Amino acid sequence: MHLKNFQQSLGYSFKNTQLLKEALTHKSTKKEMHNERLEFLGDAVLDLIIGEFLYKKFPHSPEGELSKMRASIVNEKAFATLAKYLKIGEYLYISSAEEQNNGREKDSILSNAFEAIMGAIYLENGLESVQKLVLNLLDKVYTISDFKNLFYDHKTNLQELTQAIFGVIPEYIVLDSKGPDHNKEFLVGVFIQEKEYAKASGKSKKEAQQNCAKIALEVLRGQQ
Amino acid sequence: MHLKNFQQSLGYSFKNTQLLKEALTHKSTKKEMHNERLEFLGDAVLDLIIGEFLYKKFPHSPEGELSKMRASIVNEKAFATLAKYLKIGEYLYISSAEEQNNGREKDSILSNAFEAIMGAIYLENGLESVQKLVLNLLDKVYTISDFKNLFYDHKTNLQELTQAIFGVIPEYIVLDSKGPDHNKEFLVGVFIQEKEYAKASGKSKKEAQQNCAKIALEVLRGQQ
Repeated sequence: MHLKNFQQSLGYSFKNTQLLKEALTHKSTKKEMHNERLEFLGDAVLDLIIGEFLYKKFPHSPEGELSKMRASIVNEKAFATLAKYLKIGEYLYISSAEEQNNGREKDSILSNAFEAIMGAIYLENGLESVQKLVLNLLDKVYTISDFKNLFYDHKTNLQELTQAIFGVIPEYIVLDSKGPDHNKEFLVGVFIQEKEYAKASGKSKKEAQQNCAKIALEVLRGQQ
Repeated sequence: MHLKNFQQSLGYSFKNTQLLKEALTHKSTKKEMHNERLEFLGDAVLDLIIGEFLYKKFPHSPEGELSKMRASIVNEKAFATLAKYLKIGEYLYISSAEEQNNGREKDSILSNAFEAIMGAIYLENGLESVQKLVLNLLDKVYTISDFKNLFYDHKTNLQELTQAIFGVIPEYIVLDSKGPDHNKEFLVGVFIQEKEYAKASGKSKKEAQQNCAKIALEVLRGQQ
């Protein structure tokens, strides 16, 4: 009954409730079946799902950017946020010591349980099932603008804004570069209708452009 | 024609040859489409496939053991071995500078290309397709005994050996444990027909048992 509510808010009904219980069981219970093995599996499932999502959403981002973006979504804090949205804490099986230690609210415990639940769904119903659930969940928990910040994609944000305001896209120009090949630094300026809105540096042109776009966004938003 | 041979030995025919070419293109070519993005994807695909394989093959191994076993398969050296088996080096697109630098034989380049190819198959044909191919490949490249060493599963090896020699399975007994709860050390002995064959310690009973089994295997193999 209890777990029925959880499965309803999760949007997935387990065929094998035992698997769900295992995913909700923290190792502090000293039970033989706790959620660490499922967490191991869920972690890899989530890495792939978020990786593929970003790979497709940002067809021009190089590997380094994709990795950074993924790290901003696949981490303890972000998963704990999703776990809290699903109220996973209320359904956890934890020891009374951990209970008194506010275990139901700990990011690490919540994040692990979230991963374990995704691992359990994967085992039972395959990748696509977890994929739908996770992308849907990300969409619900983060508003569109949060989501964009999460991706640190200031360039896309700036482009959308300048198109809305000026009807043009911003132009990035490398103003300077210095340092040896393996440790270069680029200074980039961002121009909108030939006016410079910001200057910033970075270890790659892309990084410098992102830094520029961030400042230009602040400038433009201040003016609005 | 050229790539046909490769696809034959790979056991997978690409619908979109462009995708295979991308996966075989090293960034040294300075081409816009090189294999780093596909490698990003393939890396996550392989982590999940090997993780799931181990999760199912070793239903009693805790998360830490699974992680260690995965790390022994999912790494540059092991993937380069698979890449060499598939002769990926011969089919790579690399710059002439990298060519002169023996790039076609470099573990890092081969391993990345292997991951990229797996990422490309995943994109085109889904997880199961890569799963079959990879598990089949591991099976071909490693003989059964290599495969077992790769997993460091000395307990299973010892059990098979003692069953063959004595018709019984080994017995593990905790002889001593010391240290505080969060930093315990266990001393375990392995007995075959009530005779002690080895003693070893470890941070968990399982670790101590594995260490025991490793020594007992050496002892028994020395006697054969």
